Amino acid sequence: MPPFDVPEGDPFGPHNLPYGVFSIPGPQDRTVGVRLGDHVLDAGAAAHALGSPYASLLARPTLNPLLAAGRTAWSDVRRALTAWVTVPSHRATLEPLFHPLSSVTLHLPFEVADYVDFYASENHARNVGRIFRPDAADSLTPNWKHLPIGYHGRSGTVVVSGTDVVRPCGQRKGPADAAPVFGPSVRLDIEAEVGFVVGVPSEAGSPVPLGDFREHVFGLCLLNDWSARDVQAWEYVPLGPFLGKSFATSVSAWITPLDALDEARVAPPERTHALLPYLDDTDPEQDEPGGYDLRISVAINGHVVSEPPFSTMYWTAAQQLAHMTVNGASLRTGDLYGSGTVSGPAERERGSLLELTWNGRDPLELPDGKRTFLEDGDVVTLSAWAPGPDGVRVGLGEVTGRITAPRTGR
Amino acid sequence: MPPFDVPEGDPFGPHNLPYGVFSIPGPQDRTVGVRLGDHVLDAGAAAHALGSPYASLLARPTLNPLLAAGRTAWSDVRRALTAWVTVPSHRATLEPLFHPLSSVTLHLPFEVADYVDFYASENHARNVGRIFRPDAADSLTPNWKHLPIGYHGRSGTVVVSGTDVVRPCGQRKGPADAAPVFGPSVRLDIEAEVGFVVGVPSEAGSPVPLGDFREHVFGLCLLNDWSARDVQAWEYVPLGPFLGKSFATSVSAWITPLDALDEARVAPPERTHALLPYLDDTDPEQDEPGGYDLRISVAINGHVVSEPPFSTMYWTAAQQLAHMTVNGASLRTGDLYGSGTVSGPAERERGSLLELTWNGRDPLELPDGKRTFLEDGDVVTLSAWAPGPDGVRVGLGEVTGRITAPRTGR
Repeated sequence: MPPFDVPEGDPFGPHNLPYGVFSIPGPQDRTVGVRLGDHVLDAGAAAHALGSPYASLLARPTLNPLLAAGRTAWSDVRRALTAWVTVPSHRATLEPLFHPLSSVTLHLPFEVADYVDFYASENHARNVGRIFRPDAADSLTPNWKHLPIGYHGRSGTVVVSGTDVVRPCGQRKGPADAAPVFGPSVRLDIEAEVGFVVGVPSEAGSPVPLGDFREHVFGLCLLNDWSARDVQAWEYVPLGPFLGKSFATSVSAWITPLDALDEARVAPPERTHALLPYLDDTDPEQDEPGGYDLRISVAINGHVVSEPPFSTMYWTAAQQLAHMTVNGASLRTGDLYGSGTVSGPAERERGSLLELTWNGRDPLELPDGKRTFLEDGDVVTLSAWAPGPDGVRVGLGEVTGRITAPRTGR
Repeated sequence: MPPFDVPEGDPFGPHNLPYGVFSIPGPQDRTVGVRLGDHVLDAGAAAHALGSPYASLLARPTLNPLLAAGRTAWSDVRRALTAWVTVPSHRATLEPLFHPLSSVTLHLPFEVADYVDFYASENHARNVGRIFRPDAADSLTPNWKHLPIGYHGRSGTVVVSGTDVVRPCGQRKGPADAAPVFGPSVRLDIEAEVGFVVGVPSEAGSPVPLGDFREHVFGLCLLNDWSARDVQAWEYVPLGPFLGKSFATSVSAWITPLDALDEARVAPPERTHALLPYLDDTDPEQDEPGGYDLRISVAINGHVVSEPPFSTMYWTAAQQLAHMTVNGASLRTGDLYGSGTVSGPAERERGSLLELTWNGRDPLELPDGKRTFLEDGDVVTLSAWAPGPDGVRVGLGEVTGRITAPRTGR
């Protein structure tokens, strides 16, 4: 019987236990919740009810205190939660603290400090190169295999799954236009990504080595880096993407702790270029592979259009963290970094409409009509799972968003 | 007699009254201070002592509550402060609440939300174009005169004046190198800029029009956008600057309210290209010019090397705000945006060593030796003033920082 008796094989069973922040109708404040099946456990109330010392980390309106507490606390809290939802003697105490998912509001689960976005899929980078620089000798820029390319995005417009995305307006200029024109983006796209959430800060001037990844990063989420391709194309030389991205970035409401994903760890693709020591993850003594086998699914209005495999990412999250700090830049609790668009080698594994439609040349055939880029009213949903213990899947929380028409009048 | 009797013509007289956050030795917390001459008034304590309703905005450890309070409150608080420091009857009450500047510690005055950096000086952009693309037909990229180019930077590494800057390490690759090498940056540079501080947030999906600039922006500061040119050159194609900038950005400890700079407003340079309506500030009915006549001075180890004139900036802060939000991106209290390097038309008006030494070709002759880029131990100080009422200058708080050697060992 729910909430405890999650069906066997449920990807949100007690082996998963992702964290979010929820509220219930009425005057109650936001608080940390843990998902079990299709229920949310009020984790802070559970801690209080069971006399747990972790109430101070869990009875909070954001995950930030838990994120800041560090790896030992993360393991301890997860161990406690696992016991709470599996030991029968707790059932009577905890049952009233579970809420059906359908009855709660899910909020942005943490306060985002800095947001960085990478570009770590070789397939994606090569596709983009072929589309925009068809005459180039190499579809990758010369730096691509030497460092994980990244840039800072706007943390103030990171929104939780379910938030509508207003179609952005901006400047665009086609090759035939004498001057740029202004209007709603006509090439609104998605980027299917995985976001990594930093818990433990670092000191300015002190890089975080590759091996310290799990000391700083708490967990991951799905991330949709909405992109206005027409705005981006006109603005991005020489300082990179700005308004083409900054209107919205959606993240899933659930943060999956890295500890739930140990069975999903895989070796990244073979490195074709020698790496500088701070990025070199080919040490044969390192027995913890840096990749994650996450199977992502991209759906438009419920119709799956792509299944990007995260295991194909060339640069790992640990390399991205090492690179991001190697210049001495400090980390803060709540820093978020996106993997970059996840694209596999196959056509139906591409993580953006830019690639799926080859910049609009080959429209997708959806049940409700053809699509090159997104139309108003379209709902995009990213979901994913990873291999878990005993063959059971670990589900990642979905990230969904609907495109709404730009507001008119000023 | 100090603190009240500031010498006539002092650029930090009662016509200025910039805001900062300070602490005094001992257990006392950080609190908002207002500078008068070479003293700091504990503004929250003053409000309490005088029974002012503004204590709730001023007896705070950051400026954020005041920033969020909005233009009417900004004007009211400024009017009250002006009365407090000029009306003789308050002297006995307030005198104990002044502290000599030399006795206090100044802190980062506000919590930085998002940090954006622009590229708004035509002289700077042309110099950079000539240095890095000497064969290009136009030293400006095609978009430059149509939109204020900008990108997001790292808000977590914005530091207050006086904070040491650890020389960053990173990848660089010279034209003759077969592969990138790793090490401390050998082309560490400055960028002399002005930073604008957002007070009042805006809603996602709702652009902020040009005319609403002063409803959202509270004031300005000096900003040094430290730049590792060698790191930047290798990393920045195609997604823009990242590690070449993210190690540190220094801001002055004092935020000058826009209300103190009314006499400094000037028309920006003549627009050579028609502007799209949301950026068009050439409306003849608009009687509030968008530029600011700020005279910046750049000193290395106390020796002035450049005097960049802010009045030469092509894009105004109001245009930058309108552009930054035209795609629907929301503003938060504490958003900071940099003007971009300020460079005037003359050689000694350039705001970076890149330009001053023409990428190292023409070293500067300093009293302590030649300089192409910064050496460990170098102290860089930006200072500035603006025309104020009755011919008195309005001083901006200086921003200073010393380069320290990278830490070795990991």
